[in-house]
Parts: sequence; structure tokens; C-alpha cells
Amino acid sequence: MKLVTFRSGDTTRLGVLDGEDVIDLNKTDPTVPANLRAALLAGADLAAAAARVVAEGSGERASYRSLTLAPLVPEPGKIVCLGHNYYDHAKEGGNLKPVYPQIFFRGASSLVAHGDAVIRPLVSEKLDYEAELVIVIGKRARHVKRERALEYVFGYSCFNDVSVRDYQKRTTQWTIGKNFDGTGAFGPWLVTPDELPPGAEGLALRLILNDEVMQQANTSDMIWGVAETIELLTECLTLEPGDVVLMGTPAGVGWVRNPPVWLKPGDRVEVDIERIGRLQNTVQDEVTAR
Amino acid sequence: MKLVTFRSGDTTRLGVLDGEDVIDLNKTDPTVPANLRAALLAGADLAAAAARVVAEGSGERASYRSLTLAPLVPEPGKIVCLGHNYYDHAKEGGNLKPVYPQIFFRGASSLVAHGDAVIRPLVSEKLDYEAELVIVIGKRARHVKRERALEYVFGYSCFNDVSVRDYQKRTTQWTIGKNFDGTGAFGPWLVTPDELPPGAEGLALRLILNDEVMQQANTSDMIWGVAETIELLTECLTLEPGDVVLMGTPAGVGWVRNPPVWLKPGDRVEVDIERIGRLQNTVQDEVTAR
Repeated sequence: MKLVTFRSGDTTRLGVLDGEDVIDLNKTDPTVPANLRAALLAGADLAAAAARVVAEGSGERASYRSLTLAPLVPEPGKIVCLGHNYYDHAKEGGNLKPVYPQIFFRGASSLVAHGDAVIRPLVSEKLDYEAELVIVIGKRARHVKRERALEYVFGYSCFNDVSVRDYQKRTTQWTIGKNFDGTGAFGPWLVTPDELPPGAEGLALRLILNDEVMQQANTSDMIWGVAETIELLTECLTLEPGDVVLMGTPAGVGWVRNPPVWLKPGDRVEVDIERIGRLQNTVQDEVTAR
Repeated sequence: MKLVTFRSGDTTRLGVLDGEDVIDLNKTDPTVPANLRAALLAGADLAAAAARVVAEGSGERASYRSLTLAPLVPEPGKIVCLGHNYYDHAKEGGNLKPVYPQIFFRGASSLVAHGDAVIRPLVSEKLDYEAELVIVIGKRARHVKRERALEYVFGYSCFNDVSVRDYQKRTTQWTIGKNFDGTGAFGPWLVTPDELPPGAEGLALRLILNDEVMQQANTSDMIWGVAETIELLTECLTLEPGDVVLMGTPAGVGWVRNPPVWLKPGDRVEVDIERIGRLQNTVQDEVTAR
């Protein structure tokens, strides 16, 4: 099952993909909150609701291509990001094999949807891509062991963890360089775990810049898999429904290349994950996007 | 004017302090959302509403001491934290004078209220205090210059940025050590800017552990004041109504002492800021708090 969050006037709505169509889940079942986080917090059985409307062929439909998407979870409680979760990427930046992941947070104000512009800010030209697998948490998780951890995953999607490298490296803390407006591309849709291998392992992941493959890896190359990551994080904190975890990026980012590759206005940047989907964005300068 | 967020059953309510009493703002004016972030996002003129009920002596009252407080903003969109914003604290950790603040985020799942237990987690005994001034953003701010920046501050409060030091230093990224459940103490109340010097400058700030003063500084010692911080942050990102910014801590933290001072169960830890208030919490072990 594939779920999307799309815009409708000033608000968002939840839909389920059925072939080329999206069925509006909120119009079909008005008890479902029109926001993935709110629906999960309310304990709505979204997968069942989605399966029902698809099986019945009921509900209000629109063609997928006619919709304007929103970030998959527009306002997550937390966006937890892993760094150095692929050894080849840690190595290309001059780092040893990690014994614990780098962890930082994004804020919701950095998010954009599939199809939205990724924004090159006024203050920097050092804009870089990072293809990542992302998980959406379905249930409150604290002190969860890896053996049960996948029960807490509501679904999987794609993320482009676009980074402003000079700000990221201005101090030891990367957070500010990971939180510029218009840099966290999230979508296009959520794929429920029943459609994928456990923990979304063994999937090819690629970053494609203007048709050129810049990053190419497999989710099995992650040092901390999805289950291990949930165990590691929930040793410290509570993951809540609608929280989002970015699983880190493999080698091939722009800043380590010679010469460096920076994203520039007009670039088409895509994150493609096998059996999940392809997230596409075009880069715009901040001044032109406002 | 002093505003508090207090618990009422499963929900929170907004109140205004009037002497020893709290007047319930939501019962007096049902159009005011019962949550500081929601009220600010909705553009409610909270200061005016609070001034009105105090002047009229109207509304439902309860004694302040009878209430159970909630974190001042229970679910901020972002909690932006500054590190190394007092030179003496940067120096005590072996760092040079900063040219840019360290920036990291907290998540709402780490927050506790005045009077709540601060939690020493199962997995660490390296729990440390950090007294901080905190600001609550009142209006959407992007590319705001310092000369106008204070117009975007809705109010000031106290924060204890309790840190799990071994997790904080496990990698270069501090975020995980700043996000354990039950470690971000926030309150007791919000003081509106009209009651304080511009930017809350010139206020004595102290951390008191079991009646012993452990940190003592003045908010004028901050390298980046409130106005400079808003300019610096909004160069990169949008600060939204209800967002929270922690202004960093001065020298005197526990881990640099010889021998180190770690918070332990039963400790009473207080953040006191002149003309703002005193935030008090007691430390409990995670196992006893659950």
C-alpha cells in the first residue's frame, strides 16, 4: 500500500494510491485525521482503511499527476537523522569506521515535498545532495529491542538530506547546515512494510543528478539497519507516532568530488530507491523562489 | 505579565499569574487555543487577553501552588539550542573563543515542566546540569536584522539543558546526549518583554544544586545576545511562532569539575534568572520514575 500526503487549499489530505489514481482517504472516512502524524497519534488503522477503499473501489479519486504533494509527514514531532551510516561515505570524508552513528535533528521548517523546489539559499552556494532511506514511526517506542523493532515502523520513503556544507562545517555541530528552509525533500509516498523486505534491506538506492548517477548503494550496506537503529535510539528517547528517522547516505556526495559538485538552479535531483519510488526536485535560488 | 501552561486532565491550559493566583485564560476567553504554540500560530493577542482578565479581576482562578505545570511550550515546532555562547564555558571545556555558536536541536519528547522529575536514564550516570535563558518566538521570522529582532520575541523563561555527557561525546554530534526523555526542564512561566530589559540583558543567572551555587553569570556575558541570535538563525531558517531558542550555558558545569559532579537521585536542581523566576526540579532514576 502506498500513501500520499497532498495539498488541498491551505490544508493537507491523506490519499492512497490505486494505479494512476489517488483515493482521498479523508473524504472516504472522515474519522481519519488529514495528516499522517495526527492519524498515527490517534491510533487510526490507516493500512486497513486504505486497503478497504482500494478493495471496494470506493471514494473520491483524482489522478496522481494532477495533485500537488506535501512533505509526506508535514510536521513530524522529531526528524532524527543518522550520519556516517554507510562506511564508504564515512571514509570518503576522512573518517574511521564509526562505532556509533552521528545523530542530529532536522526541523519541519526545512521540509519540502516531491515536486517542490529545493532552495539554494542567499548566503551559500555550497548546496549538496544526500540520498537516504527514511522510516516513519507508527507506534510509541522506548527501550525496544531489535527483535521487535520492525513492529514500530509504519512505512518507508525517500529523503534528500540536502546540506549547506559551509554552514554544516562552521562548527563541530552540523545541525544548522542541515536545517535551511527548503532543503529536506521528503516523499513522494509512503510504502507499507508488507510490500518490502524486512527493514527495507537489500534495496538499491541511487542519487541521480540531471540523469547522471552520483550515489549508488544498497540499503544492506547500512552499518545500523532499521531494527538496530530503533533499538539504539529508544535506549535514549521515545520515538513517537509520526516521528521520522533518516537512515544516512552512502558515498558519492558532491563536496568530496574533485572538483566539488554543488547543486545549482535548474538542476534536477532525484532519490531513487528500488521498490519504494523516486523523489524528484528541481533546484531554485532563494531569491527566485520567494 | 507572566503566563503559565498547566495540566488539566489529559490536556494543557494557559493561565496568567495574578499575585498568588492563576487565572485560566481559556475558560475566560474560549477563542484562545489552550496551548502556547497554537495560540501564537493563530495570532491570538495573548498579552492583551492576559492584561484584560487581570485588569477586570475576572475569570476562573486557582492558586498557583495547587496547579501541576506542563512544559511552558509543550510541543514547540523547533527547539534550537546554542552551545558555547558564554566564553568562560567554552574555555572550561578546552575550546577557543567561538566565532559562530554551536547549534543543535532538542525534541519535544525530552521536555519536562517545573516541578517534574529530571530523569537519570538507565544507561548512564553522567547526568549534568546547564542553566540557560530561553526565548519563545512570537512571530514568523526570516532574514530579520538585529535592529528589529526583539519584535519577534514573545517572552523569556528558564531552561535546564540537562545533558547525558557520555552520549553527548560519543561522536562529534551532541544531539543524542541532549535528547534523553525527561532532561529538558522548561519553565516555570513566561515573562513578557515589557517586564525586562531589552533582550533580557543584564540579568543574573544561577544554577543551584542542593542550595549550592554551581553556575553564576550574567546574561550580558553571552557572546551572541538575543537579537544577534535571531539575526544569525533567520539567515538560515524560519523561526515560527512557538519555536523556542535556548541561549547557552555559562561556566561551572559538572563534568569539568575535579572530581566531576553528576546529578543523582534526590538532587534538587534549580535555574534562577533575575526578574524571570526560578525553575526547580528533583532528579529521579528512570526505573523509579516509570
